[in-house]
Amino acid sequence: MFRHVVLFTWAEESTGEQRARVAEELGKLPAAIPEIRAYTLGADAGVSPGNHQFAIVADFDGVDEFVTYRDHPLHQAVIAEHIKPIMDTRAAVQFEV
Amino acid sequence: MFRHVVLFTWAEESTGEQRARVAEELGKLPAAIPEIRAYTLGADAGVSPGNHQFAIVADFDGVDEFVTYRDHPLHQAVIAEHIKPIMDTRAAVQFEV
Repeated sequence: MFRHVVLFTWAEESTGEQRARVAEELGKLPAAIPEIRAYTLGADAGVSPGNHQFAIVADFDGVDEFVTYRDHPLHQAVIAEHIKPIMDTRAAVQFEV
Repeated sequence: MFRHVVLFTWAEESTGEQRARVAEELGKLPAAIPEIRAYTLGADAGVSPGNHQFAIVADFDGVDEFVTYRDHPLHQAVIAEHIKPIMDTRAAVQFEV
């Protein structure tokens, strides 16, 4: 399995509505991109101080399937229209499981 | 399920041996901390530019079990002895799945 993890912090001036919209739009991708084997996402639970604010963990059969997802037009549209406008910082890792 | 994600970058002067030791020591935790339901970790695969260098994704039944892991002496020992000495930056999120 090939696991993709990405964490975001949001711009201070972004709204709860904008942040919720990111989760909503990303949540549509598994139905549209069959290469996605598992897809979990969510806002930070607020249990530990100093955390980032939002996480995605996505699983694929291998690196090729991950790249298909990464570069997919529907994914890139969510990034351009909903994530980039409110993103402050991004941290990501992909690793073999 | 309660999912914990943490990403690290390592200090430039850290060695491959030190970085490998982090994975080795963390890999012992699931056998010692029964609250851990699933535990995956790995170095970044080098597929996407600008990534962090190491990831852990750990799953728990709930927030209480995560806190038990977070504060567990064996976990804290790995952080103090192997992670902190070579850590540059850290990004984390916990979220309900």
